[in-house]
Amino acid sequence: MKIYLAGPDVFLPDALAIGQRKQDICSRHGLTGLYPLDNAIDLAARDCSLHIFKGNEAMMDAADAIIANLTPFRGPGADPGTVYELGYMIGRGKPCFAYSNDPSIYVERVARFTKVTASSDNRLVDPDGLTVEDFGLSDNLMMIHALDLHGRPLLLPRKRPDDIWHDLTAFEECVRLAAGKPG
Amino acid sequence: MKIYLAGPDVFLPDALAIGQRKQDICSRHGLTGLYPLDNAIDLAARDCSLHIFKGNEAMMDAADAIIANLTPFRGPGADPGTVYELGYMIGRGKPCFAYSNDPSIYVERVARFTKVTASSDNRLVDPDGLTVEDFGLSDNLMMIHALDLHGRPLLLPRKRPDDIWHDLTAFEECVRLAAGKPG
Repeated sequence: MKIYLAGPDVFLPDALAIGQRKQDICSRHGLTGLYPLDNAIDLAARDCSLHIFKGNEAMMDAADAIIANLTPFRGPGADPGTVYELGYMIGRGKPCFAYSNDPSIYVERVARFTKVTASSDNRLVDPDGLTVEDFGLSDNLMMIHALDLHGRPLLLPRKRPDDIWHDLTAFEECVRLAAGKPG
Repeated sequence: MKIYLAGPDVFLPDALAIGQRKQDICSRHGLTGLYPLDNAIDLAARDCSLHIFKGNEAMMDAADAIIANLTPFRGPGADPGTVYELGYMIGRGKPCFAYSNDPSIYVERVARFTKVTASSDNRLVDPDGLTVEDFGLSDNLMMIHALDLHGRPLLLPRKRPDDIWHDLTAFEECVRLAAGKPG
């Protein structure tokens, strides 16, 4: 079974090494991890980003399932590029697994980035007056419930690991579930 | 033709009114706009967020296409909930249209939120050392090129409108394209 390994991991300084670690974990559980950076891309090409897109899409189409890293990225929520891939794979009817290494709920994280107040019409709002989702969920309800209904619920650590970008405990739990070995 | 109207518009204080304006524009172009807040949801129900998800997914499944508002939301990039929906609809093979009311490029916007520097290995990085995508695109390449290949390129205003949450010029241009009336 081939698993597409989605996540902002590709933006890490050691992006190749973390991809290799993830692939090694997949192998240990009898799965094949497909990692975006394994696509051969000419980074000097003018339309390099289009080649990256096409490579990632082909990899998703070749995969049987996805494991997405939804750890909050550059703001209170998950990386939109990763979320796009999660939506695409669910749209294609493939089983979806995901984890986040930050166990806090969304509304708590928004409050770390900006001021959250109660509006006169009783909504939690940010300084622009936009509602802050307050359902006690880890992130936007679309991703959370998509996983509930089209895969397995988002996996979270009990405690935020010291290194949220390199701790692969929750990732390995996703691999175990994808391999049909819960617990 | 039924169009799913995706976007963080649902978080605005006047979310119902902006939805009505979008639906009126669709009607004027012979299309039917499906707006998430038209789903009847009991907001007091314990599993309210799950009902919202199911309503939105059923609405997407009933729609022939999507117009997504990718205006940056609570950070440098698009709203992940909207991006999930864009990915889902592309996965389902439906034509996709999108706009953003902020014409700046991604790397410029990241620099508004956080410090962007050059790393020793010649990447643009944020303070966590994570690469900042620098392809001259408006947002993460996955959404931008998905639109290029599975719909129409992201529509942007020449100049950022005074009210990025209520200006519907770029939205109406998407409707025109969806209705097959370019220009």
